[in-house]
Amino acid sequence: MNQPRLARREDMPRVLELIKELAIYEKEPDAVEVTLETLEFDGFGKHPKFTCFVIEVDEKVEGMALVYMRYSTWKGEVLHLEDLIVSQAQRGQSLGTQLLNEVVKYGKRLGVKRIGWEVLDWNESAIQFYENKGAKVMREWDVVQLDEKGIDNYLENIN
Amino acid sequence: MNQPRLARREDMPRVLELIKELAIYEKEPDAVEVTLETLEFDGFGKHPKFTCFVIEVDEKVEGMALVYMRYSTWKGEVLHLEDLIVSQAQRGQSLGTQLLNEVVKYGKRLGVKRIGWEVLDWNESAIQFYENKGAKVMREWDVVQLDEKGIDNYLENIN
Repeated sequence: MNQPRLARREDMPRVLELIKELAIYEKEPDAVEVTLETLEFDGFGKHPKFTCFVIEVDEKVEGMALVYMRYSTWKGEVLHLEDLIVSQAQRGQSLGTQLLNEVVKYGKRLGVKRIGWEVLDWNESAIQFYENKGAKVMREWDVVQLDEKGIDNYLENIN
Repeated sequence: MNQPRLARREDMPRVLELIKELAIYEKEPDAVEVTLETLEFDGFGKHPKFTCFVIEVDEKVEGMALVYMRYSTWKGEVLHLEDLIVSQAQRGQSLGTQLLNEVVKYGKRLGVKRIGWEVLDWNESAIQFYENKGAKVMREWDVVQLDEKGIDNYLENIN
């Protein structure tokens, strides 16, 4: 097995496959609105909006981790791990661990004061894994989202 | 009362006061490691890392909302509201609502497919307020954080 490496533009078709595979698994295939062109432009254009690491098995990308910087009013710039995906076929081979290791090394190189991500509160094995690694699961904090339709409704109601 | 407006560099001392006031209220005064210089540089340097809105009462900034872009592997660029703070003295005057309105209008102008933020799961009045506004509170998702010490411990354990 190879070590994780930085993704290249030409990895994006496979990265999009992994994103879609996970969305199908989560029974939300239609939620993926991002296109290959968007990923290529946003990740490898003049002002990259994310950094992506991939890991290969037999020269095929089987896992990816996508990160970007966020801004904490307490800590300044912090690193956020948006997604860590391993293909169904390659689960349990520690690809996820290797990708997470790479992300933490990357955060250290950047000198950030914090690395954050999100986890499903019923995913006890993931929570256990993260806590064993020294991460703090902030069970009190929930994620709130206002989607496109929600934005329009919101604005209609204040005008 | 004035409308919210974009923050200027010279608002940052007062914005930092609001950040610290909230941290004291949350009994974590020492958690604020960000400095005035950092806020000024990160918000108003060549590559701004956040956008800040403020609202004044009697020519004094009494509330602020700090936002930046995140990247969703499903939606592409999305807007994130990191902090919305109203001074203790001015709670209940709808400054928070006005700031949130401004953030949603800003997201609409940017054309993002989603605006997100985080809420404490026991803060029922905030959750009610957001849900009334059409936002979805994803109670299943928890926030995970690996702090500076956690990063070092993590790396020690994999090397």
